[in-house]
Amino acid sequence: MAAPRVGVVGYGTIGRRVAEAVSLQSDMHLEGVVKTRPDYAAIQAAMRGIDIYVPGGGEAERFEANGIRVRGTIGDLLERVDVVVDATPAGVGSKYKGLYSRYGVRQVYQGGEPPEVAKVSFSSLCNYGEAVGADSVRVVSCNTTGLLRLICTLDRALGVRRVWAFIVRRAADPGEYKKGPINSIVLDPPKTPSHHARDAKTVLRDVDVETAAVVVPTTLMHVHYVRLKLSREASLGEVMEALSEAPRIVLLPGRAGIKSTAQLVEAARFSRPRADIPELIVFEESISVRGDEVSLIQAVHQESIVVPENIDAIRAVTGLEASAERSIALTDETLRIGRKHFFL
Amino acid sequence: MAAPRVGVVGYGTIGRRVAEAVSLQSDMHLEGVVKTRPDYAAIQAAMRGIDIYVPGGGEAERFEANGIRVRGTIGDLLERVDVVVDATPAGVGSKYKGLYSRYGVRQVYQGGEPPEVAKVSFSSLCNYGEAVGADSVRVVSCNTTGLLRLICTLDRALGVRRVWAFIVRRAADPGEYKKGPINSIVLDPPKTPSHHARDAKTVLRDVDVETAAVVVPTTLMHVHYVRLKLSREASLGEVMEALSEAPRIVLLPGRAGIKSTAQLVEAARFSRPRADIPELIVFEESISVRGDEVSLIQAVHQESIVVPENIDAIRAVTGLEASAERSIALTDETLRIGRKHFFL
Repeated sequence: MAAPRVGVVGYGTIGRRVAEAVSLQSDMHLEGVVKTRPDYAAIQAAMRGIDIYVPGGGEAERFEANGIRVRGTIGDLLERVDVVVDATPAGVGSKYKGLYSRYGVRQVYQGGEPPEVAKVSFSSLCNYGEAVGADSVRVVSCNTTGLLRLICTLDRALGVRRVWAFIVRRAADPGEYKKGPINSIVLDPPKTPSHHARDAKTVLRDVDVETAAVVVPTTLMHVHYVRLKLSREASLGEVMEALSEAPRIVLLPGRAGIKSTAQLVEAARFSRPRADIPELIVFEESISVRGDEVSLIQAVHQESIVVPENIDAIRAVTGLEASAERSIALTDETLRIGRKHFFL
Repeated sequence: MAAPRVGVVGYGTIGRRVAEAVSLQSDMHLEGVVKTRPDYAAIQAAMRGIDIYVPGGGEAERFEANGIRVRGTIGDLLERVDVVVDATPAGVGSKYKGLYSRYGVRQVYQGGEPPEVAKVSFSSLCNYGEAVGADSVRVVSCNTTGLLRLICTLDRALGVRRVWAFIVRRAADPGEYKKGPINSIVLDPPKTPSHHARDAKTVLRDVDVETAAVVVPTTLMHVHYVRLKLSREASLGEVMEALSEAPRIVLLPGRAGIKSTAQLVEAARFSRPRADIPELIVFEESISVRGDEVSLIQAVHQESIVVPENIDAIRAVTGLEASAERSIALTDETLRIGRKHFFL
């Protein structure tokens, strides 16, 4: 089949990364992106030759005034693509759904949209097969993606019955200069469970998941303390083996001397574009196994962890690839994700 | 002449960057680095094939236990090099000076050392010529380097009589997880001038400079508000022209919509390794000219601004290059620094 043409609507934290990741795949083609404001990200996109579209005709003038060539409106882009990745702010994708459907394009949404926006809520290591050929999927949010990578990996190897997770969320992304808090720990929300448990269940219906979350004043990564009840007793060795053999999970060895997200991101600055860490990072020394209970601490890079899942989602909805394993392997090789590409 | 062999002592924020920058030059050779602890930076250096030396023989075992091969001690490295770049923590370089001198190597120190450590305090755009053939130079600190790029550029074009600068310093580097403050503005120090004025005068003896500084809870960049009294009245156009023609200074246009260090570093993440910004960034819209007075706001990336100056210093002390212009042009081309390489 011809390489599907992909449009990315929304060119912020996720959209910029997905657009770049699409352009690194040989089996799909980045047709263009929709950008709302002619800011520095738009200038950079134009500088690297990405075709830029705007939501409406009136906005083109503001771009052209800033020296940025506009190829057309969102409708022009939708006419030219087979699949759209919606990376707009939370809730906007649902408003665009009607438009996407009128143009008959397949749709990949992000976790900020409600589950009803798409036929399937998606996580590559859990339910790739359900998304194959679906006309729309929703890649779950960054924290849920991190939790599901862990849960589905241990479920496949050892069986998982119950999960409790305490999520310490970063408050804003690095480029956001308006969002807070700057000196508070915010219960998110006080009433448990947090939405992450519901979100995980949109993918994994049969696992009992409870979550609570707080927001802290940092921009780098999320950190989770997770406790899982397995279907049977297991050894530390069995848990370590399952995690170290899974794609997109990296066991961070104690010898690296890393005990903060600051050091983790600093290490990534010297080896990864933008210091992105798309892998789920499990602190090896934190893993504890008692009978059928496992607990551990893990870190999630909110800006990049869903990027490989978006690429897999494109392959699934377009029918490019029916095998989860093959799509995951191809995505990870092209994006240099995983243990063999890891930098420690 | 044969390419000088360079050793880098200290492999932290500055040392790692200088080592990489040396390895990108065709007229010098990185012989190895001295590292104190076998942490993630040491693991990464070993992974990329950099020869690692340790301060003393006893420390080699801790490295080898972490899977890091050690080539020898600092003495072994000093035997093999023509010039050493000392990038140790402030004050340590002075203690090492005797050792460096015993091995007869040329010395490049950082601004954390007292001026007496070296024959010449150095800033490429101000006094390259004084460092040519000197046996030791001291590259002034990041904030002073930023101030001196501005002052010497305007002095050459229009003459500068007096300078007042208010420096808002970042509190720690991104990888540092122990340093504060986290919720305070610290006068650094309350008694003015801050050390930056004295430091600037070690290079520019004839300009009257006053500075004051505070530290704020951020890790990204420093920001200065600078006011200069010129030798004559000038127009905004003359000031803009002088700044836009100088190397290592970038006028950030208002159209980029950037009004925070967060956005500036975010833009750099998409185009520069580690999001480094070795250029002095002057916010174009902030420049104001009234008669013989100029004021403006500028930003200094503390981790990388002195890196090109270190490369120039190596060329000067080894006598590789007698011309400031040629060294600066070569450094900037190899490190992709300056307007034509800028990302907006």
